[in-house]
Amino acid sequence: MSSSAAQIRGLIGDRVKAVRGKDVDALVLHYARDVLSFDVVNPLQSTGSDAIKKRLDEWFSSFQGSIDFEINDLKITASEDVAFCHGLSNVKGTTTIGGKISMWYRTTICYQKMDGRWTITHEHDSVPFNVESGNASLDLKP
Amino acid sequence: MSSSAAQIRGLIGDRVKAVRGKDVDALVLHYARDVLSFDVVNPLQSTGSDAIKKRLDEWFSSFQGSIDFEINDLKITASEDVAFCHGLSNVKGTTTIGGKISMWYRTTICYQKMDGRWTITHEHDSVPFNVESGNASLDLKP
Repeated sequence: MSSSAAQIRGLIGDRVKAVRGKDVDALVLHYARDVLSFDVVNPLQSTGSDAIKKRLDEWFSSFQGSIDFEINDLKITASEDVAFCHGLSNVKGTTTIGGKISMWYRTTICYQKMDGRWTITHEHDSVPFNVESGNASLDLKP
Repeated sequence: MSSSAAQIRGLIGDRVKAVRGKDVDALVLHYARDVLSFDVVNPLQSTGSDAIKKRLDEWFSSFQGSIDFEINDLKITASEDVAFCHGLSNVKGTTTIGGKISMWYRTTICYQKMDGRWTITHEHDSVPFNVESGNASLDLKP
């Protein structure tokens, strides 16, 4: 594995820990100020790390206590200064309204090295939808 | 713009033409044999260019005549041998059952240079969903 790929793998490990600990600041740190993100839920797209922070604050506050989180099937492709990775994110927890959630979604994270630091300039998270029902597929498993 | 970025921009131009002309072979040519794709519709993930071909065949045959297709807000990030780009894909057409479709979805395409050719090793296409209704958001506009 290239040293770039090893660095990205380390960042993903940090990300998993930060989501489990609901540490918004540790997560936001890795996004470019003008990151363009495609999220699991509306809207179609968002621009900026402030939007990421707002979304994480909302998401984390919808869970009671800590979140059980992992990223499976992680595949990293990296050159010296451009990299991308993808995997299947799994989030499990209890919502503030008492429901149990266990959901898999697809994650693609794209990095550029800026001032010597790997920085997320684009992220795409989603679930597919069922073409017959028009519903988002929230119960698929790998 | 770097020469890599110019090459990717050219490939996206070719892609747009190929979708409009329903040219499955011209599209499949650019995918790695073991490409990992996250599509707009189920399943959660697919592996391989054969799955891409099957999906394109199905998708194109669901339209009467040609498809009106574009990718807006294209942003390309490229090094010598790793690149990614993202944009908003818009498909318009008339389905074989007579319905008019005009839909925007998010597209992220990730490339590796293999044997001197830019090759798609990962693609992620999706629409977000409406968290209140659980429905896929098929009518959002940029």
